[in-house]
Amino acid sequence: MTSSVTPTRPPATLLFIFGGSGDLNFRKLTPALYNLFLDGYMPEQFEVVGIGRTAYTDDSYRERLLEGIDEFSRRKNGPENQWATFSPRVGYLQMDGGDAAAYHLIGDRVKAREADWGGPANIIFYMSVAPQLVPGIATNLSQLDFCGDKSRVRIVVEKPFGHDLQSARELNALLLSHFAEEQIYRIDHYLGKETVQNLLALRFANTLFEPLWNHNYVEYVQLTAAETVGLEGRGGYYEQSGALRDMIQNHLLQLLCMVAMEPPTSFEADEIRNKKVDVLHAIRRIAPDQVDQVAVRGQYGAGEKDGGSASRKPTPAYRDEEGVKPDSMTETFAAVTFFCDNWRWEGTPFYVRTGKHLAEKSSVITVQFRPAPHYAFPGAAAKSWQHNCLIISIQPDMNIRLRFQAKRPGQTLALDPVEMEFNYNTSFTEQQPEAYETLLLDVMAGDATLFMRADQVDEAWQIVMPILDQWAAQTDPASMPIYEPGSWGPDQSTEMIEKNGFNWMNE
Amino acid sequence: MTSSVTPTRPPATLLFIFGGSGDLNFRKLTPALYNLFLDGYMPEQFEVVGIGRTAYTDDSYRERLLEGIDEFSRRKNGPENQWATFSPRVGYLQMDGGDAAAYHLIGDRVKAREADWGGPANIIFYMSVAPQLVPGIATNLSQLDFCGDKSRVRIVVEKPFGHDLQSARELNALLLSHFAEEQIYRIDHYLGKETVQNLLALRFANTLFEPLWNHNYVEYVQLTAAETVGLEGRGGYYEQSGALRDMIQNHLLQLLCMVAMEPPTSFEADEIRNKKVDVLHAIRRIAPDQVDQVAVRGQYGAGEKDGGSASRKPTPAYRDEEGVKPDSMTETFAAVTFFCDNWRWEGTPFYVRTGKHLAEKSSVITVQFRPAPHYAFPGAAAKSWQHNCLIISIQPDMNIRLRFQAKRPGQTLALDPVEMEFNYNTSFTEQQPEAYETLLLDVMAGDATLFMRADQVDEAWQIVMPILDQWAAQTDPASMPIYEPGSWGPDQSTEMIEKNGFNWMNE
Repeated sequence: MTSSVTPTRPPATLLFIFGGSGDLNFRKLTPALYNLFLDGYMPEQFEVVGIGRTAYTDDSYRERLLEGIDEFSRRKNGPENQWATFSPRVGYLQMDGGDAAAYHLIGDRVKAREADWGGPANIIFYMSVAPQLVPGIATNLSQLDFCGDKSRVRIVVEKPFGHDLQSARELNALLLSHFAEEQIYRIDHYLGKETVQNLLALRFANTLFEPLWNHNYVEYVQLTAAETVGLEGRGGYYEQSGALRDMIQNHLLQLLCMVAMEPPTSFEADEIRNKKVDVLHAIRRIAPDQVDQVAVRGQYGAGEKDGGSASRKPTPAYRDEEGVKPDSMTETFAAVTFFCDNWRWEGTPFYVRTGKHLAEKSSVITVQFRPAPHYAFPGAAAKSWQHNCLIISIQPDMNIRLRFQAKRPGQTLALDPVEMEFNYNTSFTEQQPEAYETLLLDVMAGDATLFMRADQVDEAWQIVMPILDQWAAQTDPASMPIYEPGSWGPDQSTEMIEKNGFNWMNE
Repeated sequence: MTSSVTPTRPPATLLFIFGGSGDLNFRKLTPALYNLFLDGYMPEQFEVVGIGRTAYTDDSYRERLLEGIDEFSRRKNGPENQWATFSPRVGYLQMDGGDAAAYHLIGDRVKAREADWGGPANIIFYMSVAPQLVPGIATNLSQLDFCGDKSRVRIVVEKPFGHDLQSARELNALLLSHFAEEQIYRIDHYLGKETVQNLLALRFANTLFEPLWNHNYVEYVQLTAAETVGLEGRGGYYEQSGALRDMIQNHLLQLLCMVAMEPPTSFEADEIRNKKVDVLHAIRRIAPDQVDQVAVRGQYGAGEKDGGSASRKPTPAYRDEEGVKPDSMTETFAAVTFFCDNWRWEGTPFYVRTGKHLAEKSSVITVQFRPAPHYAFPGAAAKSWQHNCLIISIQPDMNIRLRFQAKRPGQTLALDPVEMEFNYNTSFTEQQPEAYETLLLDVMAGDATLFMRADQVDEAWQIVMPILDQWAAQTDPASMPIYEPGSWGPDQSTEMIEKNGFNWMNE
């Protein structure tokens, strides 16, 4: 979240993308940079250099990227051909990130550009590479003499930030041996979404919600990140990850932090991150013998799903997907009950769930309020009575809805749940920037608010480790709950919440 | 508000309408009864008898009423000609309400009908007559032996309930000398509106609002009842009334009670009315020397107003209207600041205003919340920052809107006020019953919740008397603030609220 109100262009920037020939750059990074350029947010002086082992010339690299613009950018190149102005500032460097001897090429490029520009530039290294390559690249980079310059050199690291608590600590230790914490931008693209950023505005620019935002009034909070797609060819990666690592340890726990955090004193990056890490610190640690009470995993079985038209097509079970072991114990669904042991939230459960091949694509936060303390209406007035709740949809819908009771028109006193709605897309004419646009601009501007600090990553791993350990110990393939594609996950997920007297909000 | 949830037909009813040949019956009462009939709410056994001095036969009276149905009912007679089923149960009695000797006609009608129906019926006398005729009719009615039967005889009295505190007390004393309080239904059609009834549902069937509903969170409340029309030929009546008597003493103070009242224990009529009268009792009495600080009157001058199309047509000043004295001191606009001296509302002003020939036709309640206690956002983030508020539109729009701040999409942190909206008409498919339908059914069912009890009327007069007295003492015609038709009233109204640092919400 760029805290400057009048957009100012970042200083001169040289941005290196390791994994320049890779999919993330093609689909997300270059389209985001191009959109920032079209909107006038790119520095006056900048160059973007893709780094990879694939053989490209500058020209063939640019041609390849233009395909990505036309396919994935929210704005295509278009008739004015602005790409022609942007693309000369994009180049390619063929080198192996693991080859320490090649890094002088980067040093040379920096020197040449700084000479052109007449002074030192910000230098950003974006690691859009497989996680196992990150330590080597970071180590090699640290040999370049300018990398110690905290004021102008930054590295951007994509998740996963480790595979478990121990590997995350090792990774952090390695990065911190070469770079200062303030140079390390751990990116979680979820946090760059407009609706997620709007959570802070909703909570802290309004007086309406804060008085209700605690255990006295909130019965529970639900956070759902549901996908309708399956593996999409990422079997090899996913087998090593699973729903808990892939979604809950990072995105959903960060979202929970934004829902549960105390009001910040300011919007300084470290103030926001301190308040968020306070929440992680307050989340009750799960004892090994309690895991089965508060955490549910599942794997999708074979089934059918809607193919976008009326036709339904068969889908393979997870264990039959390419790159997946036939007795895989990797979960494609996870649901966890968290508690925050602090003054504000004591006793209010936070139900978090995520999964693939679920009934709907939706990321949504539901804040359900407690029932009225006294019910003055005649009993029969409220056959369809529901608790008040605030529903914040993050994607694909971007809206905020408040569900309350109103009198149904007519001669009888009947109450019905109705909704007030605020729709982000109809209320604002501005285009929503992509999360990567926001985050790349923040890196260039040196605003780390929306990025993960080492202690946030560490606390989040601490929270999920008891679940991961317990699940790892349950190795009988028959013990994995299997759910039907297009459902809301295994029955055990429903049971987990129903035993507290509540239900998942599936809408 | 009929507290029964499953609609049950009221018992056998004989309804006499004094003023049967009058405008209110023609436009409102018979259309309402007819709609109740179409909806199956009328008793199995009923008769409606119009009483008046005009010469009608039953047939010519029915023909006249059918014109009213076709012109004013939300449902016309239509092709199924259901009027043919309804109208035989409507009759006319030509008599002078001031002629005591004629009342045996009523007694005869009751006896005949009860003989037909095989038992005692509910008997309702609706006084749709000039206020000065009410005492005589009530006195004459009391001669009929059955009128003392509290369980089945009711009288319905239209406003005004007196002209000031003393005359109101005299009227109440007279009515109570002939009838028990529980037999007297003082009708305020404002309270029959669906949106007004929904206020109770909004406040007491939801947990969201009640924690915020007090002086800690509410900065002020505004109640506006604005009309775009002028006198509409009612000059003779209005000269004796004025905006304060015509709208504030009754409708708006009652609305204020519903906004400010404590939660009721039940929806029993007297429980609701007790809680409302508690509010009136708590409203700070205005000292004579304080009136000019908290109350503003005004009169519309000559001007132009929009004639519904692009054309504008001249409108006469109030003092030039037919039936109005050229130096009239009757106000067509009034604005008053009230305070409730109780635990919940201490220090929160209630700004109330009403007027004719104003900029918009709208009845709306605005609950404005206090600003956030701490503002963590960068100062420039909120150039267009507004306080949170809840806007309840009663007519002609029927909606509830919650205004709050959201982040404007884009790379800068800018907050903009946006709204969540619940629209009554788009959220419910049911037709809205007219206020008179609700209230007539309530009278037949014996539910007095939405009617004014004697002590409510008395307290409301006590509240406005200091203003009326002070204004009556200011007799210089030049001292009356004149406002332009199509404006929001005189400048003094704006000054009254601005000196507290607030503004009228004119939208």
